[in-house]
Amino acid sequence: MRFFSDNAAAACPEVMKALDEANRIDTAYDGDAWSARLDDAFSRLFETQVRALWVTTGTAANSLALAALCPPHGSIVCHRDAHIQNDECGAPEFYTHGAKLLLAEGAGAKLTPETVEALLATVRNDVHQVQPHALSITQATEYGLVYTPDEVAALGRLCEERGLGFHMDGARFANAAARLGCAPADLTWRAGVRALSFGFVKNGGLSAEALIFFDTKLADATLYRRKRAGHLLSKGRYLAAQLLAMLKDDAWLRNARAANDAAARLAAAAGERLVLPVEANELFLKVTPQEAAALRARGFDFYAWGPGEARLVTSWDSDSAHVEALAEAISAL
Amino acid sequence: MRFFSDNAAAACPEVMKALDEANRIDTAYDGDAWSARLDDAFSRLFETQVRALWVTTGTAANSLALAALCPPHGSIVCHRDAHIQNDECGAPEFYTHGAKLLLAEGAGAKLTPETVEALLATVRNDVHQVQPHALSITQATEYGLVYTPDEVAALGRLCEERGLGFHMDGARFANAAARLGCAPADLTWRAGVRALSFGFVKNGGLSAEALIFFDTKLADATLYRRKRAGHLLSKGRYLAAQLLAMLKDDAWLRNARAANDAAARLAAAAGERLVLPVEANELFLKVTPQEAAALRARGFDFYAWGPGEARLVTSWDSDSAHVEALAEAISAL
Amino acid sequence: MRFFSDNAAAACPEVMKALDEANRIDTAYDGDAWSARLDDAFSRLFETQVRALWVTTGTAANSLALAALCPPHGSIVCHRDAHIQNDECGAPEFYTHGAKLLLAEGAGAKLTPETVEALLATVRNDVHQVQPHALSITQATEYGLVYTPDEVAALGRLCEERGLGFHMDGARFANAAARLGCAPADLTWRAGVRALSFGFVKNGGLSAEALIFFDTKLADATLYRRKRAGHLLSKGRYLAAQLLAMLKDDAWLRNARAANDAAARLAAAAGERLVLPVEANELFLKVTPQEAAALRARGFDFYAWGPGEARLVTSWDSDSAHVEALAEAISAL
Amino acid sequence: MRFFSDNAAAACPEVMKALDEANRIDTAYDGDAWSARLDDAFSRLFETQVRALWVTTGTAANSLALAALCPPHGSIVCHRDAHIQNDECGAPEFYTHGAKLLLAEGAGAKLTPETVEALLATVRNDVHQVQPHALSITQATEYGLVYTPDEVAALGRLCEERGLGFHMDGARFANAAARLGCAPADLTWRAGVRALSFGFVKNGGLSAEALIFFDTKLADATLYRRKRAGHLLSKGRYLAAQLLAMLKDDAWLRNARAANDAAARLAAAAGERLVLPVEANELFLKVTPQEAAALRARGFDFYAWGPGEARLVTSWDSDSAHVEALAEAISAL
Repeated sequence: MRFFSDNAAAACPEVMKALDEANRIDTAYDGDAWSARLDDAFSRLFETQVRALWVTTGTAANSLALAALCPPHGSIVCHRDAHIQNDECGAPEFYTHGAKLLLAEGAGAKLTPETVEALLATVRNDVHQVQPHALSITQATEYGLVYTPDEVAALGRLCEERGLGFHMDGARFANAAARLGCAPADLTWRAGVRALSFGFVKNGGLSAEALIFFDTKLADATLYRRKRAGHLLSKGRYLAAQLLAMLKDDAWLRNARAANDAAARLAAAAGERLVLPVEANELFLKVTPQEAAALRARGFDFYAWGPGEARLVTSWDSDSAHVEALAEAISAL
Repeated sequence: MRFFSDNAAAACPEVMKALDEANRIDTAYDGDAWSARLDDAFSRLFETQVRALWVTTGTAANSLALAALCPPHGSIVCHRDAHIQNDECGAPEFYTHGAKLLLAEGAGAKLTPETVEALLATVRNDVHQVQPHALSITQATEYGLVYTPDEVAALGRLCEERGLGFHMDGARFANAAARLGCAPADLTWRAGVRALSFGFVKNGGLSAEALIFFDTKLADATLYRRKRAGHLLSKGRYLAAQLLAMLKDDAWLRNARAANDAAARLAAAAGERLVLPVEANELFLKVTPQEAAALRARGFDFYAWGPGEARLVTSWDSDSAHVEALAEAISAL
Repeated sequence: MRFFSDNAAAACPEVMKALDEANRIDTAYDGDAWSARLDDAFSRLFETQVRALWVTTGTAANSLALAALCPPHGSIVCHRDAHIQNDECGAPEFYTHGAKLLLAEGAGAKLTPETVEALLATVRNDVHQVQPHALSITQATEYGLVYTPDEVAALGRLCEERGLGFHMDGARFANAAARLGCAPADLTWRAGVRALSFGFVKNGGLSAEALIFFDTKLADATLYRRKRAGHLLSKGRYLAAQLLAMLKDDAWLRNARAANDAAARLAAAAGERLVLPVEANELFLKVTPQEAAALRARGFDFYAWGPGEARLVTSWDSDSAHVEALAEAISAL
Repeated sequence: MRFFSDNAAAACPEVMKALDEANRIDTAYDGDAWSARLDDAFSRLFETQVRALWVTTGTAANSLALAALCPPHGSIVCHRDAHIQNDECGAPEFYTHGAKLLLAEGAGAKLTPETVEALLATVRNDVHQVQPHALSITQATEYGLVYTPDEVAALGRLCEERGLGFHMDGARFANAAARLGCAPADLTWRAGVRALSFGFVKNGGLSAEALIFFDTKLADATLYRRKRAGHLLSKGRYLAAQLLAMLKDDAWLRNARAANDAAARLAAAAGERLVLPVEANELFLKVTPQEAAALRARGFDFYAWGPGEARLVTSWDSDSAHVEALAEAISAL
């Protein structure tokens, strides 16, 4: 009974069916019929004209977005615990040709205008220091918190004032949107976001993520950067088809809600053990080593997360019996 | 009736079946059961211990291999018509951090020790010039010719003498191997090749290519480079499963033979029109604009290739009726 | 008696005196009184508002200019024999983060609109190929020819039409300007040049070159790139002082004329032996190995330049007796 | 009366004389007679065979050293206040092609094995995180403290155990060596240092710094990197001559002692106001805004350094009357 990571989940039926349907000859790269529909499909979802590019990983989406927003001699503000800082092996530095990540603080891996301003205040405005050009936040955060539209917009205003490009790493954007029940537009471009890494793989996709440019002119150079990074798959239709299948009838929201619901069930059982509120599909629990071992002995797999903590992640296909069993096991600790 | 590119073909049934079978929870990234079998599967095929990494594009495989063989301040010798020079939007320069490609000559996009030596002789051995560190050849070449084991070995000896790392872009390695009927080992490490981009996508794969290191220690840093380039897919099992499915019972050779046979049928019809011998699955034909238009009017799609030439590419699933129809149409020109 | 290279010459008295005068405390980096005068001094010379940055090498000036004009995923058109291609160890690739140099043809290392257009015509306008963003020419060329204002302007118009940034590597700009007797403006911005590497070291400087931006907004990011490349010397006043000293009373032109005159004297003696007209301070002579050896035996040092050719370079301080002796020795061959 | 920075000081007489003596024709780049003597001169100083390269800035020396010690996908441990992190506009990231700086703690900008180990313990050993490849310390530190031979050696042992390349940013190495009175070897290679940026410009040089490789094989590729970065000056003899002049008769130590002595005089006057012990030529003083204004009103220039602090820097040529006057003014506050 695995609660390691939503990365490990299977692909959802809609996606597998889409692969089968796309399995016929078409034009190579992104010249196919499926890829041609992406801009429109995402523009409808976001209620504005966007450019949408498929890529195979969130790391690639994030790095391409950051390269579009920050020159090599600039810096990118992000949280100290951000995925782009800790879990991408320097991919942002590779794609931006050496831009620096500036690390801001905030509980639950969440940035606020105050913590960002405090960091910016430490940067001298001279050529001896890399100057900030972009801000990147993670939605939901690495600790499973969500930014509300107002919170995003407050950071968006700061970006506007400071001339920073605003990127959202939406590896779990679906879980945040499902939680908040608001329009995707409210969480993004209406709040100042210029580029979004829109995650699908953790949410039931097989190998397709979407890179969405609300600042559409940024897409032009990114097409070259994507190819130059070896990310223009020759049979791109299989990626586009996955994305279209998950947009259709809001499968992406349905999947995210399932994962969130499973997490909520566990959160209810965890009660006082919760390190942070559970707002998406990740839980961080206080457990002693003995308690962790007891859970593992009963067949539950999960990551230890610092001393005395465990991380549990649910996914679109979390087995309800497993979830129930884990909830009971946690309650019984 | 499309003869544009093998890139546009469908994925073969073995691959689609493998995707279905892999569609269950497992460990993320390359920690899954399928990825764990790759080294052994390719080591058996090549009759020596290799390291095998999945990636999603030939461009990524080539660039990662070149980055392993050449420092940023070095240069890579390749043919003037090489894919890495003309069709990858500078990916080798991106991954190597600015190494230079040195362009050698040769009929049919094929290098020989003589043309490589002639190029190397133009490089002064001083710090003002980038020094050659690697040689890259394409098997089959961009013009559909194959290097025999002896031809590869002659270049391998030159690399040994000159201290060059030897890379083979095997986007159509399968077609070459099928044509030559020799052991894959004879075409690669026994002839001095240290890294091979082993193409599967053009040959019936969906999204998986293999990067094979015969110089196994090169793989260690490449694992970091792959992640850093955003090419470590979180559900890597779907890539590994494709490769394993195509290795099983030599599906890769079967597919390649089918493509080669279709090309041979067209070549027989083309006769004197052939610009070069047809040794794999690409044909280059002399056709007047009128003749090209006549073929297109009958429903055959293909690329014009320079003035007075057309490129036809067959694939693992080329429809035999279409091939026959095209052969007859060419004969009738 | 050295005719190897103007790089090896001494620094002129004006420069040495300027160093002494600058040898007192001032503000560090480029905050000093001398550096503050550069923009004005060069703006006067060029009859338009420019931004002028000191650097210590032509390679740095060229590379910073190219990085300002071409993104990492772009390409730069230059002559096959250009210094930036052959003699800078890949510095343009380093500074541009991997842009590609596209090599055009032309007698005497000189480009024409025709040869540039012929090269551009080979580039497909798709994401698989790096797209040209800049053109770089060398004034005087690597073979000692000068571009007239009309010739520069013709290339400038091509750049305008094609959307290319226009860079001039003016390592021997002084020699060209001295030869042509025209306004520096006519050779540069009036002819479409946006960035000029203005060489001083070969012309009597000690360690200072000027990077001139006619497109002044390009200077802003370049200030960061210069620092980031380790080229912001902490005692920058010694560089600025050299440049100001050479601009004063046109010392730069005086020095260049002296070098040109010496070359002209040798050219007159060389007559039919000249491979190309002598328009600046470099001569390329046809000499047999025996003749070359005879000249060396008499104490003249110079580079062999391909089979059966020798390169002679004069400089601002070429000893007139040595020049006369060499002229006579050449005549007597 | 300037106490801003040793960067702003004049060049010492030995250096100016050396420039005059070098002002004659010789071979270009680093082929001259002065450059040829560098390896030997520094090998004698360090009592072991070293390779010594001139460069014009400490930033270039640091970045070239780090590029020799750390691959693009690696990381470099340094202090949070290190110059390479805060004052070089991302030059280490540029030269290493995007390696990451990992920031360790320590009072007075000084690292200890404990703080370095604590940082290293936060790095997971997997491909998702950049792995540490090098350690860089500053001697004297950014806060004017010196590492003793034992302190350096303790870090050297840690590097040995952890497989880290050990770099010393010795912008004020002379001041540290003068303070400690020990052999330069004891502060460097005998303590495990593999590459040293040996500063001369702050200490009376005009434009020459030395990059010393104790691990001599690292120099080979660095020669290419130096050229590729535009740091191979065509008249390199003027740099080599400066270094040789400062090594001769220990002028470098004499200059450093003068600066240290001036700082000691001020430190004695500052007494309780000192934020940290004064071990080299920098003082950090607690002063109220009113006190700082009073000092400035009397003609003393210096940097404010955080709230309620001032930084004073002495140099080789600090005027003793100015120092005395400042000492008295501080005492009188």
